Amino acid sequence: MTTLPSPLALARDLIRCPSVTPAEGGALACLAGHLAAAGFSVERPVFSEPGTPDVENLYARIGRAGPCLLLAGHTDVVPPGETGAWRHGPFDGAVADGVLYGRGAVDMKGGIACLLAAVLGFLAARGPDFGGSIAFLITGDEEGPAVNGTPKLLDWALARGERFDHCLLGEPTNPDRLGEMIKIGRRGSLTGDLTVHGIQGHVAYPHRADNPIPHLLRLAGALLAAPLDAGTAHFDASNLEFTTLDVGNPSTNVIPASARGTFNIRFNDLWTLASLADELRRRLAGAADGARYDLALRPTNAVAFLTRPDAFVERVADAIAAETGLRPVLSTTGGTSDARFIKDACPVIEFGLVGQTMHQIDECVPVADLDRLAAIYRRVLDAYFPADAALQKPA
Amino acid sequence: MTTLPSPLALARDLIRCPSVTPAEGGALACLAGHLAAAGFSVERPVFSEPGTPDVENLYARIGRAGPCLLLAGHTDVVPPGETGAWRHGPFDGAVADGVLYGRGAVDMKGGIACLLAAVLGFLAARGPDFGGSIAFLITGDEEGPAVNGTPKLLDWALARGERFDHCLLGEPTNPDRLGEMIKIGRRGSLTGDLTVHGIQGHVAYPHRADNPIPHLLRLAGALLAAPLDAGTAHFDASNLEFTTLDVGNPSTNVIPASARGTFNIRFNDLWTLASLADELRRRLAGAADGARYDLALRPTNAVAFLTRPDAFVERVADAIAAETGLRPVLSTTGGTSDARFIKDACPVIEFGLVGQTMHQIDECVPVADLDRLAAIYRRVLDAYFPADAALQKPA
Repeated sequence: MTTLPSPLALARDLIRCPSVTPAEGGALACLAGHLAAAGFSVERPVFSEPGTPDVENLYARIGRAGPCLLLAGHTDVVPPGETGAWRHGPFDGAVADGVLYGRGAVDMKGGIACLLAAVLGFLAARGPDFGGSIAFLITGDEEGPAVNGTPKLLDWALARGERFDHCLLGEPTNPDRLGEMIKIGRRGSLTGDLTVHGIQGHVAYPHRADNPIPHLLRLAGALLAAPLDAGTAHFDASNLEFTTLDVGNPSTNVIPASARGTFNIRFNDLWTLASLADELRRRLAGAADGARYDLALRPTNAVAFLTRPDAFVERVADAIAAETGLRPVLSTTGGTSDARFIKDACPVIEFGLVGQTMHQIDECVPVADLDRLAAIYRRVLDAYFPADAALQKPA
Repeated sequence: MTTLPSPLALARDLIRCPSVTPAEGGALACLAGHLAAAGFSVERPVFSEPGTPDVENLYARIGRAGPCLLLAGHTDVVPPGETGAWRHGPFDGAVADGVLYGRGAVDMKGGIACLLAAVLGFLAARGPDFGGSIAFLITGDEEGPAVNGTPKLLDWALARGERFDHCLLGEPTNPDRLGEMIKIGRRGSLTGDLTVHGIQGHVAYPHRADNPIPHLLRLAGALLAAPLDAGTAHFDASNLEFTTLDVGNPSTNVIPASARGTFNIRFNDLWTLASLADELRRRLAGAADGARYDLALRPTNAVAFLTRPDAFVERVADAIAAETGLRPVLSTTGGTSDARFIKDACPVIEFGLVGQTMHQIDECVPVADLDRLAAIYRRVLDAYFPADAALQKPA
């Protein structure tokens, strides 16, 4: 029996692949090599779309029996920023004082290394006839436009007849300590542009103009006037934030012709896109007072979703508790993730490393966290594919 | 006796000089030639300041006796915009159907031509010993930064011991018909930049951020909440207009760090710059609610001023009524003008052409208006320097 690579060794190999979105950087090839060697059938579909870069992806599966557990993630990373500001090179994979540094250490090459290490260990112990299937769905476009990644890869797999019973996505989910938090859903995200049309003129002759800015102040105020809701059992309250106001008028003696504001709403399972749009238009109409305005809602693929706590969630929570002593919170906080696409194919939950340093200079992960997360994932696999169940299956 | 040039001939000569600020374009040289020939001492000081273009100016005077009537204006013009969109070339001085076309036709080469024609006629009739003095203060920097123009030219003249009893500025003052309106003052102008400092963050974690936009909406609303005043005997109500709001945040998932708004106030004689600043700071403080903000008031040389109606104003109004049959309104409306500088040297009023087409494509003036305005100015000169008073003076 050959020695299995450690989570740290796998994470270092991945970090050393400079796979800044949309570059593959060798990261998917590295994964593919390990998976193929372990008996997975591996595919590397490339997806294209006008106006976006081509993206390489990876789909791998071992076993044809059910149940099928899908393990998901991305090997692409955000840019390192000012490379010289890093304590250790962002693509060096340096370890210092028990901490692994590098872009993607927690988001999420570290998480993928733990998934892979757990699977390799599981297969080494159980062999290919473990009473089910394991699939990897790994994209190179999570940090970018997310157009040629998980949505297309998932459609591609489903079109080939692939079916999944549950998905575990290895994104960083813990705010401070490994084991604190599982994500069982995400809020939806909706962006709107509110444009108010006035009449341009000279500030000395305001009666000949119609300044759009007071109208925008009033309409924006109406959108912000009351909370959208008070939250639900598993979700925080929905929230609207104005992200920008832009008039761009350089002349202090000119009343501008139009004024624009953009807002983003993170909304919970009380809302659909349609009901939310209705509420926004209702609030604006109530404050219109004759103003001419347009509300344009940008297309979104992020609606609120929830994977209701069930036996699968309990299995993952039990595995976390066994390794860390912590009972994880079941949360729906935070930004969007590729789970919003996977939720249409099967129940999906997210659990990974501590996210604190993600997207920052000196992104890093304690080596002990890598070992512990790999052990958690291994416990999930062992619980998901119990040895006695496999033995009961017909050959 | 030679034939005197008509207002039209003078206006065409000036329009044909392409004196877009800060270019002299031959316009001041044209004026200087006529004035010197009529007996004026003419000076052409050039003023400079780092960061602004050098500007040529003209100061001319005839007579040393009092009273001295100052005639003021500018030969620079705003750019023509899209030249091809003009019915007649902006610097051609074309006349069609009794209308003179060209950049500066009303603002204010036409007005200067009328002042010059009136003075030349007056001097031809009365000779150099008319019982007083006439001075021309003509700048080439009214439409530009207004730094190297009237303020410096006036200081330069005062430093040489020049003194003025009244000033007539030939800017266009009539909204629709020649004779409708004299300007006897102007509102002040104050521009302020309101910057709100928040804490940047991710829209999915608003509790870790402090969005400056709601603070800006509230603070701007407080500035606009109530009128500054209800106007005075000679002035409209003071008015505050927001001219721009600028955050410039392109990321719809990021709460911005700061938000900025700019406003301009046109204020009447109830306010000084200090009392206005106090009122703004009081309104902001009342709505601060913990927000961190800066209010920066830009330097201004435009405070409200009023030339109280007196015998001089009556003389000009009488001259207008005699030529047009209209009794002019004494107004303080509209934007700022160089009168704001001259008012420190002597009482100043403004009367000129109909401003409707100023700064527009196809700026134009009826030839009849030029003749009538020159006749009005001539009546002002005749009334200001009565022939019997001159006869009574010692030789």
